[in-house]
Amino acid sequence: MAKALFFDVFGTMVDWYRGVAREAERVLAPRGVKLDWLEFSKAWRAQYQPGMEEVRSGQMPFARLDVIHRRMLARIQERFGLEKLDEATAAELNLAWHRLDAWPDVAPGLARMQRKFLLAPVSNGNIALMADLARRNDLRWDAILGAEIARDYKPKLEVYCAAAAAFDCEPHEVMMVAAHSSDLAAAAQAGLRTAFVARPDEHGPGRGEPAPQGSVDLAVADLGELARRLGADA
Amino acid sequence: MAKALFFDVFGTMVDWYRGVAREAERVLAPRGVKLDWLEFSKAWRAQYQPGMEEVRSGQMPFARLDVIHRRMLARIQERFGLEKLDEATAAELNLAWHRLDAWPDVAPGLARMQRKFLLAPVSNGNIALMADLARRNDLRWDAILGAEIARDYKPKLEVYCAAAAAFDCEPHEVMMVAAHSSDLAAAAQAGLRTAFVARPDEHGPGRGEPAPQGSVDLAVADLGELARRLGADA
Repeated sequence: MAKALFFDVFGTMVDWYRGVAREAERVLAPRGVKLDWLEFSKAWRAQYQPGMEEVRSGQMPFARLDVIHRRMLARIQERFGLEKLDEATAAELNLAWHRLDAWPDVAPGLARMQRKFLLAPVSNGNIALMADLARRNDLRWDAILGAEIARDYKPKLEVYCAAAAAFDCEPHEVMMVAAHSSDLAAAAQAGLRTAFVARPDEHGPGRGEPAPQGSVDLAVADLGELARRLGADA
Repeated sequence: MAKALFFDVFGTMVDWYRGVAREAERVLAPRGVKLDWLEFSKAWRAQYQPGMEEVRSGQMPFARLDVIHRRMLARIQERFGLEKLDEATAAELNLAWHRLDAWPDVAPGLARMQRKFLLAPVSNGNIALMADLARRNDLRWDAILGAEIARDYKPKLEVYCAAAAAFDCEPHEVMMVAAHSSDLAAAAQAGLRTAFVARPDEHGPGRGEPAPQGSVDLAVADLGELARRLGADA
């Protein structure tokens, strides 16, 4: 039986696709900007893996995800006609990632699992970002683990191992929960158990992983089902 | 106005003196051990600063407080006739620090301040230890910061600075709350605001700091008064 559950956050817990679009519109539309907000959201997120890879590869020193998000934004500003964005507006826009809504099953599912397991996000998001998302969505974590603790980015195995060690757990005493097969494959390689939660609309309707691509210990439709499957019923 | 409040834990939030004595008796008395449990508690804690100083000075690499507590225990075992303690019992005894009770004003005080401030322990305790104390005492933290994040021990200034940075705060945007003047003096040196909370019975009746020894921004009798002074009334 697992002692702790670790959760991926972007896509798995919160809807970044519509949330970043909504926040970008809220910040930029009053400044006269018109653009396809969902396309903008998708383009910003598309810089995610390249942005982190510079750290994972050792090309750049570790920087918090807030810093990486800002670099990622700089790379798409010209494409969206935002090359003249002033620094204060860019900083405000960068906080879009702190203002995302959780999928509706997340808060009640976590509340049920909280009685039985230690719970932590193991995300590439930094601590301040995770704390803001937790407050906004009433997520109760035992601690915020992940990239900032490990000073490296998933799917580097060190991130999963450092998180398990912080809870004084062996890797097999922890289950990683994510909507992305690549995250779970790495977690399994680090010795963790794995649960796939389907977020088929992550990148817009019908554009998400509907089922795991590799072998996982559990595959569920949402966190309510995960709680049931783990015997964490009320 | 501060955005975040940081809290010392041992002594300030939880009663280690009576708690460690109670837990030691619970673990050892059924094994036929008889000793002065409060003296044992005091002796174990007395190894605290020397144990951490080995890390702070660079003489030993960083190790989590659970590991330091175990080393500290080894140093007093003979004095208390415990030199033959088996490893499983010593490990169980070491968890005494995870099973301490908060002073009665702590949970309600934090609940009030939680609405207005980001809250985190900035303790020398490791993450698993802080998570266990939070669960036991219903303390809701936004994140667990402190020694394990900084990989060094208070009162090294890096510990306070790393914690503020994790919340994306400037040092002056944070207030450190502690029952120990030495902790607050270091926090002030790192640029944090300071609040002294009196725990006059920390080391037994009348054996604790009744008032701050240096200059602090606030001095209060308990966390209820701190909440009032910070305008965090219900």
